[in-house]
Amino acid sequence: MIGTFQVRTDLALEARESYEEDDARIRGVKIQETEDPEKEIYTTVVKIETENGARAMGKPVGTYITLEAPNLSVPDEGCHREISREIARHVGDLLGEGTGGVLVVGLGNREVTPDALGPEVVNHLRITRHMIREFGRASVLQEGEKSVSAIVPGVMAQTGMETLEIVKGIVKQTEPDAVVVIDALAARSTRRLNRTIQITDAGIHPGSGVGNHREGISREILGIPVIAIGVPTVVDAATIVNDTMETLVEALDRSDEMKKLGGMLGNLDRAEKYQLIQELISPHLNTMFVTPKDIDDTIRRLSFTISEGLNLAFSSGEKQE
Amino acid sequence: MIGTFQVRTDLALEARESYEEDDARIRGVKIQETEDPEKEIYTTVVKIETENGARAMGKPVGTYITLEAPNLSVPDEGCHREISREIARHVGDLLGEGTGGVLVVGLGNREVTPDALGPEVVNHLRITRHMIREFGRASVLQEGEKSVSAIVPGVMAQTGMETLEIVKGIVKQTEPDAVVVIDALAARSTRRLNRTIQITDAGIHPGSGVGNHREGISREILGIPVIAIGVPTVVDAATIVNDTMETLVEALDRSDEMKKLGGMLGNLDRAEKYQLIQELISPHLNTMFVTPKDIDDTIRRLSFTISEGLNLAFSSGEKQE
Amino acid sequence: MIGTFQVRTDLALEARESYEEDDARIRGVKIQETEDPEKEIYTTVVKIETENGARAMGKPVGTYITLEAPNLSVPDEGCHREISREIARHVGDLLGEGTGGVLVVGLGNREVTPDALGPEVVNHLRITRHMIREFGRASVLQEGEKSVSAIVPGVMAQTGMETLEIVKGIVKQTEPDAVVVIDALAARSTRRLNRTIQITDAGIHPGSGVGNHREGISREILGIPVIAIGVPTVVDAATIVNDTMETLVEALDRSDEMKKLGGMLGNLDRAEKYQLIQELISPHLNTMFVTPKDIDDTIRRLSFTISEGLNLAFSSGEKQE
Amino acid sequence: MIGTFQVRTDLALEARESYEEDDARIRGVKIQETEDPEKEIYTTVVKIETENGARAMGKPVGTYITLEAPNLSVPDEGCHREISREIARHVGDLLGEGTGGVLVVGLGNREVTPDALGPEVVNHLRITRHMIREFGRASVLQEGEKSVSAIVPGVMAQTGMETLEIVKGIVKQTEPDAVVVIDALAARSTRRLNRTIQITDAGIHPGSGVGNHREGISREILGIPVIAIGVPTVVDAATIVNDTMETLVEALDRSDEMKKLGGMLGNLDRAEKYQLIQELISPHLNTMFVTPKDIDDTIRRLSFTISEGLNLAFSSGEKQE
Repeated sequence: MIGTFQVRTDLALEARESYEEDDARIRGVKIQETEDPEKEIYTTVVKIETENGARAMGKPVGTYITLEAPNLSVPDEGCHREISREIARHVGDLLGEGTGGVLVVGLGNREVTPDALGPEVVNHLRITRHMIREFGRASVLQEGEKSVSAIVPGVMAQTGMETLEIVKGIVKQTEPDAVVVIDALAARSTRRLNRTIQITDAGIHPGSGVGNHREGISREILGIPVIAIGVPTVVDAATIVNDTMETLVEALDRSDEMKKLGGMLGNLDRAEKYQLIQELISPHLNTMFVTPKDIDDTIRRLSFTISEGLNLAFSSGEKQE
Repeated sequence: MIGTFQVRTDLALEARESYEEDDARIRGVKIQETEDPEKEIYTTVVKIETENGARAMGKPVGTYITLEAPNLSVPDEGCHREISREIARHVGDLLGEGTGGVLVVGLGNREVTPDALGPEVVNHLRITRHMIREFGRASVLQEGEKSVSAIVPGVMAQTGMETLEIVKGIVKQTEPDAVVVIDALAARSTRRLNRTIQITDAGIHPGSGVGNHREGISREILGIPVIAIGVPTVVDAATIVNDTMETLVEALDRSDEMKKLGGMLGNLDRAEKYQLIQELISPHLNTMFVTPKDIDDTIRRLSFTISEGLNLAFSSGEKQE
Repeated sequence: MIGTFQVRTDLALEARESYEEDDARIRGVKIQETEDPEKEIYTTVVKIETENGARAMGKPVGTYITLEAPNLSVPDEGCHREISREIARHVGDLLGEGTGGVLVVGLGNREVTPDALGPEVVNHLRITRHMIREFGRASVLQEGEKSVSAIVPGVMAQTGMETLEIVKGIVKQTEPDAVVVIDALAARSTRRLNRTIQITDAGIHPGSGVGNHREGISREILGIPVIAIGVPTVVDAATIVNDTMETLVEALDRSDEMKKLGGMLGNLDRAEKYQLIQELISPHLNTMFVTPKDIDDTIRRLSFTISEGLNLAFSSGEKQE
Repeated sequence: MIGTFQVRTDLALEARESYEEDDARIRGVKIQETEDPEKEIYTTVVKIETENGARAMGKPVGTYITLEAPNLSVPDEGCHREISREIARHVGDLLGEGTGGVLVVGLGNREVTPDALGPEVVNHLRITRHMIREFGRASVLQEGEKSVSAIVPGVMAQTGMETLEIVKGIVKQTEPDAVVVIDALAARSTRRLNRTIQITDAGIHPGSGVGNHREGISREILGIPVIAIGVPTVVDAATIVNDTMETLVEALDRSDEMKKLGGMLGNLDRAEKYQLIQELISPHLNTMFVTPKDIDDTIRRLSFTISEGLNLAFSSGEKQE
């Protein structure tokens, strides 16, 4: 029941799950799941193909690839290398062959640990654009390699500017063929934190990300392909309240003595439930997030894994594996 | 009701509030409240004088001074200067006049924003001990000024050592007259986050702080006075669940249609309630914390305010104001 | 003699000194010196008014204000406040009254301590532009206060882009009325390090700054006023070689036995001297810089002093003093 | 000639070179050089076996292993892996088989880029000591693996304490079997910067390191083996002056017209030369250092390579190769 209350999620995977409870198939949305048990990587490709599908999913038309890897949050070097290769493969596919120059945008606030994913990824990238301009493409890049530039724009409280304004200005001035944005996301469930990577050609959308962008960054707006790579590193504090409510109802249902109570809660009509949840979410909570205590290690590992994936994709990503 | 469920708090103020609901006065505990409406600083001094009081409060014997200042979380320079002076005054009082050398310990993890308070405070301190050794006390310090040393020990995941081991070793080797530890605390309520400073001569105790120390740092263990300065910068994620439950019951009570339901929840006996809460708190949540999105600004301001207070206290703190 | 060998300096003051040795007055250049003995601030205003003056000085037409304050490199809070006020006054004068919105650009590499001045200044700025857009100018700013935005673009090795490309793109997109750039400079003499602030309306020019910009940032290029604030935090390693040669000649002259030798060195003709110096400067040295060991403290203090100056200038800088 | 003037070097290799110019063999000192042309690693082992050798070399008795690898300063991952293995092998040999617990000490100032090597190495280490205490040795470590703890003590200006005081206190309290200290060194020649690693069982000595320790850290003082790993990341500014003088004399000798002059400089007697150099070295220079402009990239790569070497050495280093 309470699942229908709108909790923000940046993951298409979670949007689908929420929908699926009511109806298994949505017109205009194709879903394909593959599992690599050996590497322990579970891949879900959600293709939203029509405006109808977009409305149903609450996400724009596009391809959403989700890699789930339990090992992503543990320090297993071999496993991380596999994930880097997967990232490279998908980013290479989405970029296509004609892309010569890529601008990578590391979104987020480097001063707030779980929001520092984007800036940290940019730290580890191999930047080549300036060398090409100085020494010539032939002496810097190999066949098929991309010219790479990058920016860490900072967040609005630091810059006074929308990220979109900064990115749009730089894109117009430096004319890359594609933009890749990296962002820390807010997940709906603590279960997905730091073990899920979403890669999409649908860009970044208003209200997504830890910092809650007010304007999106997408192909429609920039005029060139925009690939967004996101990892959920926080859960909105309000989500915790929602999860608690769900668990409460389940718990009440399981306990014989409490069943009547649970039934009553479950029987509240939609408006009553909505009012109840609104009261439970204190205004404070909307400005807070929940994150694991070892988030510093996690961000360090994740940023390294993603930047390796991008370095592979930009050097000769298409031919990977 | 649910307030009696044991949620961790590092604040004596909150321990008192929780108790007070049942019984207004506790033997062995003295409480004094003062309000400075002009400066908007509310001071509560809790003196736990006997073992009985300590048991009742769940805190060791000692003096706990709590400064509450709504303006602590806003960028008002004048207000922060007032708070620095208050800190200086209280730290000076607790240190007493005979203290020649102070070791400041900045607890916490500088890589995790809300836990970086201690390390950041140490960054801004005026360190003098090494200069005294080189140039002589007379040429470095003024009458009554203290010799100041400082250490940022890091957290156990970074060092493999208990903070206490590090501090104990350094104290034995360098023989300060007193230790001042700075730590980011976990509060029980989001309402107190980043606007409350606790100063106590009771030291730091197991299970307190964002990082959850396994061993305390106190006068009993180190053999010299230990003053602890703490600011709640996070709320345990489990606390949010508890708060939600409390609000739920209140909400149910307010709504006529829901009153019956609320009454039933309220009528669950202690064991049932405890079981219910336990089920609601997922094991994940115990490794997570909740913190505001602008925690970077807050830590920067707070660390500056506290270090100014300490610099004042160590130069001629007693004569302040 | 060797002083005529062209060592790079970003300070108009030093350009003038070098010239002055040959000829005291240059047409098209006006110099005014004032001293405030109480505050220990020495101010030199060099106005390059004509192209002739610009050629002679090797600097573009413009006003160059240099504040020299020996206390800038010591931790004296009162003194720093005076300097902040001086900065505010000069920046206010150069901006003029009509300026509504200012974009501050923190040049340099935040990962290299002496080059982190610009990024650190931006860290402490009061950013208002985004609040104006959200809440309206009247509720955010006071009469005469400026809308402030800021960017830390990073250096070319990190971004693959010229700083100018980034700034130009952002200026076109966000349309500020003026740009203020902050940069760490290379001085010609270790004597000026960290105790001199240059404020100019002539912008930043190719080859200046620690990172050696390849393209300038100026009013001609951006179409709006560009005020540059610079502090020399490093000396080019090559400069040290030059200084050594000068001192060598002086030393030789002072020592009776060595006088003959010094005379001979002094009598080398221009071409010989130039060849000699070139040989002395190993190619390695061109990629190196010289900086004081306590540069971390210095950058922290300087960035605070400058950001305070800018905050004053942007709130009501003109009325300062 | 001027080479005999005492310029500080932390590298035994350089101490030997300076001596060798006068006399090829020193009693009590054994030198062995090996070259691995494929991996481009040049290894020099200097064994100072007697007090006579120690006096001659100006270094304490001990084994000094120097790895020179031109590729150390370039981003070649394969090469760095080879160097990590070499480090692991030598550290394993010096530690011996009986070592159960190691304390790693990351010396230096994390706020000053070229001095941040030690702190950065510690950042990447696998720390296990606390897990052993919690879960038992068998469940955490494999056969032969070491219990690892680490500390970043900070520099004297930050702590007011000698590093030795901090380390001694922690060693007494936590009782490791050996200490490994990592430090950024000052080299005598810019040629060796960031491409040379020195590993020694002779510890750290007064006046060494970028920060110039006043007291040493060695087996004699701590009572347990102390292995020091150092990389020269700066050159003392005074060294540049010395290098310049050497080059000057050589340059003068090569130029026919200048030969006479060079000859005269060369003929100055020892006292005259010493006086000359002293005059050339301004007091400012003693508080300054010279470092490459890309020192941030270099420190990042070096710290990763060394920490990988240590992680290998501590897990099963002896069996490497």
